[in-house]
Amino acid sequence: MTFELNRRSFSLAGLAAALGLATPVSAAEDPLPSWNDGPAKRALQAFVRRVTTQGPDFVAPAERIATFDNDGTLWAEMPVYFEVLFAVDRGRELAAKDPALAAREPFKSLVEKGAAGLAGLTQAQVVELVAVTHSGMTTEQFQQIARAWFATARHPTTKRLYTQMVYQPQLELLAWLRREGFKTFIVSGGGVDFMRAFAEPVYGVPPEQVIGSSVETRWEMREGVPVLVKLPKVSSVDDKDGKPINIDLQIGRRPILAFGNSDGDLEMLQWTQAGPGARLMLLVHHDDAVREWAYDRDSKIGRLDKAWDAAVKNGWTVVSMRREWKQIFPPE
Amino acid sequence: MTFELNRRSFSLAGLAAALGLATPVSAAEDPLPSWNDGPAKRALQAFVRRVTTQGPDFVAPAERIATFDNDGTLWAEMPVYFEVLFAVDRGRELAAKDPALAAREPFKSLVEKGAAGLAGLTQAQVVELVAVTHSGMTTEQFQQIARAWFATARHPTTKRLYTQMVYQPQLELLAWLRREGFKTFIVSGGGVDFMRAFAEPVYGVPPEQVIGSSVETRWEMREGVPVLVKLPKVSSVDDKDGKPINIDLQIGRRPILAFGNSDGDLEMLQWTQAGPGARLMLLVHHDDAVREWAYDRDSKIGRLDKAWDAAVKNGWTVVSMRREWKQIFPPE
Repeated sequence: MTFELNRRSFSLAGLAAALGLATPVSAAEDPLPSWNDGPAKRALQAFVRRVTTQGPDFVAPAERIATFDNDGTLWAEMPVYFEVLFAVDRGRELAAKDPALAAREPFKSLVEKGAAGLAGLTQAQVVELVAVTHSGMTTEQFQQIARAWFATARHPTTKRLYTQMVYQPQLELLAWLRREGFKTFIVSGGGVDFMRAFAEPVYGVPPEQVIGSSVETRWEMREGVPVLVKLPKVSSVDDKDGKPINIDLQIGRRPILAFGNSDGDLEMLQWTQAGPGARLMLLVHHDDAVREWAYDRDSKIGRLDKAWDAAVKNGWTVVSMRREWKQIFPPE
Repeated sequence: MTFELNRRSFSLAGLAAALGLATPVSAAEDPLPSWNDGPAKRALQAFVRRVTTQGPDFVAPAERIATFDNDGTLWAEMPVYFEVLFAVDRGRELAAKDPALAAREPFKSLVEKGAAGLAGLTQAQVVELVAVTHSGMTTEQFQQIARAWFATARHPTTKRLYTQMVYQPQLELLAWLRREGFKTFIVSGGGVDFMRAFAEPVYGVPPEQVIGSSVETRWEMREGVPVLVKLPKVSSVDDKDGKPINIDLQIGRRPILAFGNSDGDLEMLQWTQAGPGARLMLLVHHDDAVREWAYDRDSKIGRLDKAWDAAVKNGWTVVSMRREWKQIFPPE
């Protein structure tokens, strides 16, 4: 049972605690029920206790910044980044209305073969596909397009909605960190507008705490009403060193906890580690071929190679999906 | 008396309210004591009541975004933007250690005449001064430099610390909006790193809610420790249409309240107005030559010309400093 007080709820247990009353903590209150009682869960519990308890490692709530990569860290990324699958569907929609577009690559392959057509495209053609499908509309129109896709599109093999391809253990971790006074941010190579179309309802992360890759926008007056038009020109690639650069620009404070899964997260984890005081760096290891996918060093996307070596060297926490996660996806 | 609960304090009155107990509201609890009981204060009170009360104009707390310009809106901007005065002091420090720098403009004039030397510089020379004094160091070194300046530098005419050149009525407004569930952002043409050096202790606005102009940074490993180096290349000018563009990029949600003071804020106010539901757009009018400065249409900085006309046409709230503010600056 919760009361709504000044825009956030607090539990009866919290109220009792504030009034100095003892409250029993039962096993049912485990904030991470989908995490096995293994080294990763224990590292998280020990870290949160250290930084939230008065003592040498205490961190003021305002400085409890936690940053999470998205693809492969908060949701799956196989067989290909979901945003590329969105671009395929959107590209086919555009081609259906424009024969000239349908007749040329990269659209021709997608019209003929669907997502399977991606295999025959060059890297430059995929980039063009993403650019064309992510520009030419206002920022608000893009939100509507992305939300409509999330409401109906389904993953090619699991047939789940993409918003159900998120990791249940991470949903629990995000919610628990926020209850412990952390501010949770997404810092991902994905498009910022694409992620904002679902981050708040699914992850509980509001748009102002989503950092991602972006395109330039142009201010325009349309019949007296201002709009921002998305242009086919990348303004920021939020990957590798782009992550600490954007963290510094948009957060202005160094994270004390960072969670990634690939070499694209290496610099974010190094940046997090280099600050003073208690720090926790984590990497998801995709080693569960039965319940999810298994890949790391030789993967074309989500490659975990240099970041793995850094984890071993620096004692970062590698989270084996197979061993540490009781459940991967939320119940449908 | 307050309890500390889960990183935020709440009053006995708030607790009583949560438990359904009646609490008397006395005149002493006026959240805006430095505002006269005039049209601006009444507009603010009516707006906050509308959006926080269940009804047709209710706005969910997560969507209560308020954006404030800084120069001329939250603190003074005369005789020149304070960040330029910081650049003058910093430029003289650099010149004192480097005779080659001291011998050439724009440094030569500043070494000889101090801030008075600004008058003889071209616009391009002032831009160079700002670029040189805001780059070449790591982001953390810049924070230290700026904080040291704020700790000792004083305004040329009032002799106050710059952190005491903030407007007391605005400090009250920021704090009150936050108590009413708003998230308060600064969106200003000032340098983001410069503003972050004082925004949290002075305004209660954390670094991640400060948006400003910025330079590019470069990721670099120095003896195994990563740093971000500020480069003399502007990446974003957070002024005019740059304001809604950065609001969209970094907040991803349209403000429902925006407060500016000059033509540089016009697009931010237009963007705020163009959303659905209840909206409040405000402009500070610097019309108090006795307690502050008086300027508007013909001013070289802080010019209030096109935005004034838009305010008249659209019914935005113009806040006369002379008539609406009981007190301008906080007690020393």
